[in-house]
Amino acid sequence: MSSSLAVGVDIGGTQVRAALVDTDGQVLARADRSTPGEASALLAAVAGTVDEVSSGRTIPIGVGIAGLVDADGVFHYGPNLAVRDLPIGPWLAQRTSAPVAVANDASVAALGEQRFGAGQGHRHVLLVTLGTGVGGGVVIDGQLLTGAHGFAAELGHVVVRDAGRRCPCGADGCVEAYASGTAIAAVAGDRLAATEQDSSLRGVPAVTGPVVTAAAADGDALAIDVLRDGGRALGVMIASVTNVLDPSVILLAGGVAAAAARWYLPAVDEVLATNLLGAAARRPIPPVRLADLGEHAGVVGAACLVRPETIDLEVP
Amino acid sequence: MSSSLAVGVDIGGTQVRAALVDTDGQVLARADRSTPGEASALLAAVAGTVDEVSSGRTIPIGVGIAGLVDADGVFHYGPNLAVRDLPIGPWLAQRTSAPVAVANDASVAALGEQRFGAGQGHRHVLLVTLGTGVGGGVVIDGQLLTGAHGFAAELGHVVVRDAGRRCPCGADGCVEAYASGTAIAAVAGDRLAATEQDSSLRGVPAVTGPVVTAAAADGDALAIDVLRDGGRALGVMIASVTNVLDPSVILLAGGVAAAAARWYLPAVDEVLATNLLGAAARRPIPPVRLADLGEHAGVVGAACLVRPETIDLEVP
Repeated sequence: MSSSLAVGVDIGGTQVRAALVDTDGQVLARADRSTPGEASALLAAVAGTVDEVSSGRTIPIGVGIAGLVDADGVFHYGPNLAVRDLPIGPWLAQRTSAPVAVANDASVAALGEQRFGAGQGHRHVLLVTLGTGVGGGVVIDGQLLTGAHGFAAELGHVVVRDAGRRCPCGADGCVEAYASGTAIAAVAGDRLAATEQDSSLRGVPAVTGPVVTAAAADGDALAIDVLRDGGRALGVMIASVTNVLDPSVILLAGGVAAAAARWYLPAVDEVLATNLLGAAARRPIPPVRLADLGEHAGVVGAACLVRPETIDLEVP
Repeated sequence: MSSSLAVGVDIGGTQVRAALVDTDGQVLARADRSTPGEASALLAAVAGTVDEVSSGRTIPIGVGIAGLVDADGVFHYGPNLAVRDLPIGPWLAQRTSAPVAVANDASVAALGEQRFGAGQGHRHVLLVTLGTGVGGGVVIDGQLLTGAHGFAAELGHVVVRDAGRRCPCGADGCVEAYASGTAIAAVAGDRLAATEQDSSLRGVPAVTGPVVTAAAADGDALAIDVLRDGGRALGVMIASVTNVLDPSVILLAGGVAAAAARWYLPAVDEVLATNLLGAAARRPIPPVRLADLGEHAGVVGAACLVRPETIDLEVP
């Protein structure tokens, strides 16, 4: 078995991606398939990409998948995947005779950023993914937080306002109902309907998250207000979670993070300055940064699941 | 060095307590002093209690202290202690030549409950302390969560309602502003002033937390509403933190937990049923229970800091 290489697999709603990753986090080979809806076709797609990048060698395999995964490597449920209760980990291990580890895709991205991305040098990392929804990953003392049942790090469902906006999950007031791409569009639509404020968004047939961030970039006041409020909700969640986990760095990942950074980053900093306990003890306020592995975060992070730490880490 | 024994020290706002604790969590000897305000007198009190229970033997020492502690064992700040920036860990290690570990008192209580109390059999424990304020401790996979700077598990400062009630910490909407003993009294006082609702609390010279819970126990509708609302805020915080940490058991400790359990426990269960992500994946809802080590939690938990796990744990 080649111990200096690992295969990382990223199973998302549209693509199954695999990569051969070396000890420096460099991608040596890649293979992609579109994601089938049916379980046996999905397993075949995963096996196909793994075989392609590993070229017949037995190499440890890490898998990130968009949804809830238990400690046995069984995928249970994800909003963008049709399969349910798929024993992806045990199946891959039996088929390949290689060590296999499976985790949630956002958790895996946190591990990748901590080892090779914007979280390098930190042992305690909080990563928030901002896209259609809000997710996250947590690294504690260099190890991924998975929880008792594999359901940890669901940062999108931290409540910021009890009895607030309805979240797609069914609860009220989750940060996902304020700061996701879907939420930005919905909040902007509500304000257009409820007020007479002038806005370039009036008359736009479909107000989406990218439409709102583009309008804000062009100076539209209503769009800017929506993003500032989304950033504040994000900040409240991050401050609450920082009071629980005490990370030394906070990373924002995903398309909405990049598009809304100009409004989200200052809003988060502002809330951290008021809501973190311990100002009297000169507690350091962790820096908030954009993640930087981009499209490779999934496969590189997945590869990190199956090998020990490979870089020197400094405790900040 | 006697490896089967440990000394646990609990430094609180009124008492310094030390105990000699065996591998079953039994207290073999105890010593108490009142807590001095001045640093050298506090160190002398700690040394005195440790000497008394260890009888000249070199025994590992664990210390729980009411406030923020960093990874080097330096106590920085606590609302009920006059000292600041006290290197209690290094000082005790030098004086006794024994291994010493120091952590926040609520974190230490979580460890004690996990090893020997209401959390036995669980490797992932969330403990919430409800008293004058709201604090907490977190055990992840059998290990105490301390964070990058030793400031983790400040559960009282998770926000449940952005821009809500002012918390003693200076932020707005923390759960501590709704569910602590102080908060219960303040909320009841506000409702007495703002409404004309009939209540046995009207005319009581000083409405305190115990006065409110006693009135609720006698059937006072206003007091019951205050406790139900406090329980809901507690539930929102616990659900949010459970979505992040995925514990397998949740424990409530402290005087307010015991006095308000009749209203708090059902309110927390109700919020968990709606706010935990993953009902579609048949995620187990963790049980919520009262802690049961009582006055021994501090010293027994502190002793657990300096030795490996001593009991068999089942993963639930």
